[in-house]
Amino acid sequence: MAATTPAYRITDLFAERARNIAPPTYSTELTKITTVSFTYGLADPILFPHAHLATASAAVLAEEAPLALNYGPPSAQLYEQIILRLQAKGITTDRDRLIIGYGSGQILGLLPDVFVEPGDVVIVEGPTFLGVVVRFVQAGARIITIPVDELGMDVDALEVTLSDLKKQGIRSRFIYTIPTFHNPTGTTMPLFRRQKLVALAAEYGVLVVEDDAYSDLRFQGEIVPPLATLDKEGWVLYVSTFSKIIAPGIRLGWACGDPAIIERLAMFKSEGPVGPFVSHVVARYCATGKLENHIQELIACYKHKCNLLLEAIAQEFPSDVVAKRPDGGFFVWCKLPSYISAKALLMAASEHGVSFLPGTRCYTNGQGDDAIRLAFSFQPTQNIVEGIATLGAVLRGWRH
Amino acid sequence: MAATTPAYRITDLFAERARNIAPPTYSTELTKITTVSFTYGLADPILFPHAHLATASAAVLAEEAPLALNYGPPSAQLYEQIILRLQAKGITTDRDRLIIGYGSGQILGLLPDVFVEPGDVVIVEGPTFLGVVVRFVQAGARIITIPVDELGMDVDALEVTLSDLKKQGIRSRFIYTIPTFHNPTGTTMPLFRRQKLVALAAEYGVLVVEDDAYSDLRFQGEIVPPLATLDKEGWVLYVSTFSKIIAPGIRLGWACGDPAIIERLAMFKSEGPVGPFVSHVVARYCATGKLENHIQELIACYKHKCNLLLEAIAQEFPSDVVAKRPDGGFFVWCKLPSYISAKALLMAASEHGVSFLPGTRCYTNGQGDDAIRLAFSFQPTQNIVEGIATLGAVLRGWRH
Repeated sequence: MAATTPAYRITDLFAERARNIAPPTYSTELTKITTVSFTYGLADPILFPHAHLATASAAVLAEEAPLALNYGPPSAQLYEQIILRLQAKGITTDRDRLIIGYGSGQILGLLPDVFVEPGDVVIVEGPTFLGVVVRFVQAGARIITIPVDELGMDVDALEVTLSDLKKQGIRSRFIYTIPTFHNPTGTTMPLFRRQKLVALAAEYGVLVVEDDAYSDLRFQGEIVPPLATLDKEGWVLYVSTFSKIIAPGIRLGWACGDPAIIERLAMFKSEGPVGPFVSHVVARYCATGKLENHIQELIACYKHKCNLLLEAIAQEFPSDVVAKRPDGGFFVWCKLPSYISAKALLMAASEHGVSFLPGTRCYTNGQGDDAIRLAFSFQPTQNIVEGIATLGAVLRGWRH
Repeated sequence: MAATTPAYRITDLFAERARNIAPPTYSTELTKITTVSFTYGLADPILFPHAHLATASAAVLAEEAPLALNYGPPSAQLYEQIILRLQAKGITTDRDRLIIGYGSGQILGLLPDVFVEPGDVVIVEGPTFLGVVVRFVQAGARIITIPVDELGMDVDALEVTLSDLKKQGIRSRFIYTIPTFHNPTGTTMPLFRRQKLVALAAEYGVLVVEDDAYSDLRFQGEIVPPLATLDKEGWVLYVSTFSKIIAPGIRLGWACGDPAIIERLAMFKSEGPVGPFVSHVVARYCATGKLENHIQELIACYKHKCNLLLEAIAQEFPSDVVAKRPDGGFFVWCKLPSYISAKALLMAASEHGVSFLPGTRCYTNGQGDDAIRLAFSFQPTQNIVEGIATLGAVLRGWRH
């Protein structure tokens, strides 16, 4: 009996879905470590409210340890604080319409479980945040891309697509959009387009997934109401996060929308509710009211970095590279002249220690080699100036 | 265009798998709130090391905030601390053979993603921890139950089952076992059975999933080596957690085993690595060396509670209720005489303010109405005495 059978292998036991390892979402295309990375939308660590979180942690552990450290749901106060934040944006909600997850990415990643069977149509923006969209692709969704222009998603093109699909008897599952300080383009969709988008959702019976990670970080311009405030019939699922306004490392995001969706997201969030400890700490911090001041500090800092980046670009880049000034968020999108490939540019720039996200990493279909995304959020100001000077030199010396 | 189509409903958009809401794992069968609950294996909140966690949180936020609060992997120090804990149990491992999750429950819940296609055979103990096994059921696994006796899983019965399956051309995906301080029976499998279990796994090419949540909490008896130490060929996946030795509310568990399995578990842990903040805090606490003292305090307290429960049972229960003394862990398992139904007893006891887990909630197949699980971990000592007195009175007055 003790004789082993070498013919057996662990890997034979894997289910079909586990036989092949999916490639990581962000495999680096670079072999070198760059000194100045404009690649990822990381928060600036200098801005983390670590002292306030320490105060909150100490208070939670001194006063709420029995609840915060045992099994159980997230802090009730965290639900209240999120509901208050949503109210301030004009979104009326309650606990039955709200789910808290380990980052908004977790919740967005659960959407395919609820909505997508292989071949189902999901509509995304082009360019878009591929970190989320790759999850729809992995679930077997048929991705249809609607272009983004200066005013965000082209809702007229969306209408044509929805109408065409309807003629084919196809009802898209959902439309994934980042209407405010769009990732990667920085664009903000104006009210008239938002109204049309929500009306189209109702007309065609398609869910709109509004990813609103950045809207608190507005540097300029008027506030535009979230899609969720324009929706009277539950066709919008609103998703947001503490990652950009407190810290990503606490891993807390949320979604609010139709209770039937929330219930199912919770069902597929199979490890159960988010951690009591972290949820109590963040709730306690929010309840002090200090988060609002903190957000003002973030805005001042990121606005400064954005301006610095744009000034450096104006000084250093050839005039046929067109950078778009965002009203907020983490990113500047630059369109390249036709003779420069974003991927080739990345290879060349990385040789000089500078990296960024090529536009090809913002499309599922290989488009985007004509643009790059520069994240100004993470780098110290000095690096921004130096990095853009380096990139400018590479661009100016481009052979064409 | 703005005209809405009332015919469309959100629920029509749901994928087949999301149409029906799965019942919650632990739906309460009681309508009353009981004053003394022996139902759940909750930790005793008095024992949470909240002051040490506060010190660790303060240190992390003062000194490691840039890493602990940004996007990124869990603390490297946490991997080291877990590897050291495993080494102390005789398990040699490294980072490539280790995954950290939001509780061991998350990792166990991911097993079906890696291993189970509908109809695949999964072998479990009877009784078992249904909180995990229900996830195998939901994935469509065909569950085969091997009985647990005084020495844990009956490995001779297992051998017969594996042999029968082989004759049918069926290779089970994995065997889920809790060999030490078994949930719910408290049983610990002796070495000779462990050796046979691991040999059978290799002979039949079946993975053994060793759920080792409780082994640090030993009150008496000799340490028995984990299955993972007996395995030379990678047929054991060892799963454990900080929930019982630090606190469940931090939500941190881990698994170690064949890198091919670890890699795939990480792939299906789709929200990414566990939260940097919590992982840094727990690593910092572990690195102080204070956890080992803390575990000694836990052992003293839980041993006391266990003794108290068993003494109260000896005094209050009719002699035909047979309670089994565990060598550690959170649970005492009581076999009922044939004329008492566990479910009926729960109904009657709850009328008097006492609840427990009926044995039926430890089987997938409706068995277990002849036993109950009493968790002594959570209740204060006074409640244990009073609760058992109440339950004893109900048992003594049982009409038969």
